Amino acid sequence: MTLEQEINQSNTYYLSHDVAVIHKKPTPIQIVNVDYPKRSAAVIKEAYFKQASTTDYNGVYRGFYIDFDVKETQNKTAFPLHNFHQHQIDHMRQCIAHGGICFALIKFVFLDQIYLLKASDLFSYWDAMENDDGRKSIPLADVQKLGTEIKYKIQPLIPYLSAVDQLINEIS
Amino acid sequence: MTLEQEINQSNTYYLSHDVAVIHKKPTPIQIVNVDYPKRSAAVIKEAYFKQASTTDYNGVYRGFYIDFDVKETQNKTAFPLHNFHQHQIDHMRQCIAHGGICFALIKFVFLDQIYLLKASDLFSYWDAMENDDGRKSIPLADVQKLGTEIKYKIQPLIPYLSAVDQLINEIS
Ligand SMILES: [Mg+2]
Ligand SMILES: [Mg+2]
Repeated sequence: MTLEQEINQSNTYYLSHDVAVIHKKPTPIQIVNVDYPKRSAAVIKEAYFKQASTTDYNGVYRGFYIDFDVKETQNKTAFPLHNFHQHQIDHMRQCIAHGGICFALIKFVFLDQIYLLKASDLFSYWDAMENDDGRKSIPLADVQKLGTEIKYKIQPLIPYLSAVDQLINEIS
Repeated sequence: MTLEQEINQSNTYYLSHDVAVIHKKPTPIQIVNVDYPKRSAAVIKEAYFKQASTTDYNGVYRGFYIDFDVKETQNKTAFPLHNFHQHQIDHMRQCIAHGGICFALIKFVFLDQIYLLKASDLFSYWDAMENDDGRKSIPLADVQKLGTEIKYKIQPLIPYLSAVDQLINEIS
């Protein structure tokens, strides 16, 4: 399973156990040509993938607006920042400005380790890269120090909302 | 312009003026067949529209999770409840249970009038229809009494967040 599939499964658990309402946004598609056959469903005949203008997931948990993205890296020593796009960073900054809780779930596939990295930490490295011609990745050791590791469980598979509880405690 | 287009334009205004971050979710699509031509973008060759499992819009405003749907009716005397699907009603109930603010923006096209109807009022009519074999629509007079009319302005075109302020005041 990809990390996204694992998160989707965890969100289904959270929803059915009345813990939180968090969904993956559909993939944005530019539709060019649609066929409307008689007596059957419309068929999209030509369409293209559009770049998402926001993050992949949002929803509500404990009264808070939650917004995050899920990223996997094959890199063994660092998380490459090019996994994010400028507009995703901008979107998270906007959400935080209005009281939302934003973060990234990062999986180091080779290590089979998942970390929740809060958006403010991500922004520090992003800004350093942009402003000072700094490094284009976050060292694994920094992700491990700043982030919260999320260990696989049975139910939910990825209990990431426990790490979100910590973020909520920090701001409450 | 459709009401959706007008709301999208209003959301763009709200975003650019740092008032709220509210986006329309992309239309969910079931992709069946994709072509990956060399040296050009992937082309979706066969896909189908899926029924949305949630509402059309969500985001964050004044620290609150906001979730709503936009509906237009040509009906002159009532809002037909079949404009909603059961899973949209369920989704709004779930969001409210976790502290979200949910509502419908309903436009009576013939009257050129838009109302914000809070989800709890919508639920009353929905439940009456389901449980008591009650009427399958909300009379216009009831929408006018229970809802808040939103008059067109220049910027934003549909200042619906003023009506949301009232909902926030009620629960704060
Ligand atoms: Mg992603
Ligand atoms: Mg709609």
